[in-house]
Amino acid sequence: MRLALNSLMSKALFRTENEFVQWLQALAARAPGQERVRPLEKGVKLGIGDDAALVAVRSTHELILTTDMSVEGVHFTRRVHPPEAVGHRALSRSLSDVAAMGGVPRYVLVSLAISREVTRGWVSGFYRGMLALGRRFGVRLVGGDTALVAERTFIDVLVAGEVPRGKALRRSGAHTGDQIFVSGRLGLSALGLRLLQSKAAQTLLPVPKSGALRRHAQARVPVSLAREAVQAHLYPEPQCALGRFLSERRMASALIDLSDGLSIDLFRLCAASGVGARLWGVKIPRPNLPFPVDSLRLALHGGEDYQLLFTVPQRKVSSLPSRFQGRPLYHLGEIEASKAIKLVTLEGKVRTLDPAGWDCFR
Amino acid sequence: MRLALNSLMSKALFRTENEFVQWLQALAARAPGQERVRPLEKGVKLGIGDDAALVAVRSTHELILTTDMSVEGVHFTRRVHPPEAVGHRALSRSLSDVAAMGGVPRYVLVSLAISREVTRGWVSGFYRGMLALGRRFGVRLVGGDTALVAERTFIDVLVAGEVPRGKALRRSGAHTGDQIFVSGRLGLSALGLRLLQSKAAQTLLPVPKSGALRRHAQARVPVSLAREAVQAHLYPEPQCALGRFLSERRMASALIDLSDGLSIDLFRLCAASGVGARLWGVKIPRPNLPFPVDSLRLALHGGEDYQLLFTVPQRKVSSLPSRFQGRPLYHLGEIEASKAIKLVTLEGKVRTLDPAGWDCFR
Repeated sequence: MRLALNSLMSKALFRTENEFVQWLQALAARAPGQERVRPLEKGVKLGIGDDAALVAVRSTHELILTTDMSVEGVHFTRRVHPPEAVGHRALSRSLSDVAAMGGVPRYVLVSLAISREVTRGWVSGFYRGMLALGRRFGVRLVGGDTALVAERTFIDVLVAGEVPRGKALRRSGAHTGDQIFVSGRLGLSALGLRLLQSKAAQTLLPVPKSGALRRHAQARVPVSLAREAVQAHLYPEPQCALGRFLSERRMASALIDLSDGLSIDLFRLCAASGVGARLWGVKIPRPNLPFPVDSLRLALHGGEDYQLLFTVPQRKVSSLPSRFQGRPLYHLGEIEASKAIKLVTLEGKVRTLDPAGWDCFR
Repeated sequence: MRLALNSLMSKALFRTENEFVQWLQALAARAPGQERVRPLEKGVKLGIGDDAALVAVRSTHELILTTDMSVEGVHFTRRVHPPEAVGHRALSRSLSDVAAMGGVPRYVLVSLAISREVTRGWVSGFYRGMLALGRRFGVRLVGGDTALVAERTFIDVLVAGEVPRGKALRRSGAHTGDQIFVSGRLGLSALGLRLLQSKAAQTLLPVPKSGALRRHAQARVPVSLAREAVQAHLYPEPQCALGRFLSERRMASALIDLSDGLSIDLFRLCAASGVGARLWGVKIPRPNLPFPVDSLRLALHGGEDYQLLFTVPQRKVSSLPSRFQGRPLYHLGEIEASKAIKLVTLEGKVRTLDPAGWDCFR
């Protein structure tokens, strides 16, 4: 079936699919600001433009495959997220999944259903943001698919990665007594989103109705923290080096990335492992806000931090470094036999923690 | 960010993402009509439910990666396509890409953004259609992603396949003098779509305005042909065995699958190879309709036949079998040095053939 488009709109984007493919081939092959076309990288036998991509996988490794959707109005909005950030975030989600297996990302394919409301400049910014992140991680764009649609833009990113045979880290390996660590502060991305939304809300929308939102919008969040939070939301950093370190040194018994929020992702890790957990509220690393309770809530239930949550057997805790690549690793709880997840609150009370992060069916 | 859904709708689908994942794990693991859960197949180290899938790739092979989107209102409509056909067709597109490389498909990941207008029965039918096709081709569902959206359903399918090192067939290998073959009749799928649309149009819509459409709607297409055409449209058969045969025997110099239509896909093969072609109109295999011109037009520009178009060097033509697995291979033209694509019409005139199949940017 064919999609009817008025010619004005298709001219603003690309006249034909061939034109788009050639444009993308050139963009993917060039280093930023350079005209030099790079040769196909090691491992890539055939990139964009044939029926499929063709790549090599080392015989000593297993293949990691992961897909993540980014849907306009669900995972991003054009009002809040610049196109470069949309591209960066879409790829980050899949790179973080590869990190959560202890693997190294190698190849990416992108399916993009472009809203007819966006411009060629938006599409260009999207790919630039994605390709810039991909280059830093040694990931090469090798293919994908494209369509034009009337309403919202849909993005699906597939990343293929590698991990040495038998070294992949799973969600299911946690045992009673294992200690729980996280790779960075939690809730920063959710705070950044709220700041971006409230800023946008001030100029474009009525004042938010929710009390928490209004408080954040009106609160004097220190400028340096606000900047850090907005950066964490728009340009999250997948923790691939740490995932690989934990896998190679066989440090972690279980590993998951925090895409949907600590409360729900810890719940998933525990469910897969058949165990429970105890979190110490005061030890959960979080942004220092004027409202301590909101700050803990953001850290527990805010998603998209893309930090790694992992469990370390008691006997290995002493060999875990306190910092990795200059950033602290935080010890925030332990695995328990009882299947519930308990939170020791800031006031020292113990309560059951329900999974309340992002769930696409709620 | 979170998608707000009313509880009624989310109950009609799945209450939580965990519930959906468990439902899908069970569906993918069971043979149809059986309760027995199959063990992980050879090569699959980790399937649905962790951060990513983990599979093995043989060291003697290269990895094929391809993604294909199926967008409601662009590639299918719920009025014309039953959910089983939507699932079958979505996977067919990617299997056909693997066939076009001469490879064997192994693993599939599916990203599904579900319209809140569909029911759990629709989602179930979709996966059943896809899994039934996957089983026939030995392809295992190992992962994906899910979201809920307000309007149209989006599907993105990723298939990973294998091909022995150095054996992949590309679009770019055709040379002057090579002979052009196709694996089956063309235009059947487009005819099937028109029949389905006109049937739907008779009951649900005003009579189509286009003359060609109205003629088809009113014409007495023989019942057996109509059935064949509707089947070809709803349940196309990827030509993986033929692709593998052509690759293993090194028969074809270039290969592409006919997803968008003969005129545009031959154009792509010729552009990649830096050559032109001559097609003999009378030799193009097509449905036998009361209107010969419409029939040829369907065969030239109708898409979604998923037959293989391939070129064979002159010296190898005598070793190409006339039939493959009981079905004829059709010889319909030859590669020429001049970069144009020429069509010898049914009346014996030579005219330039412009690419006029499906292009997502037109």
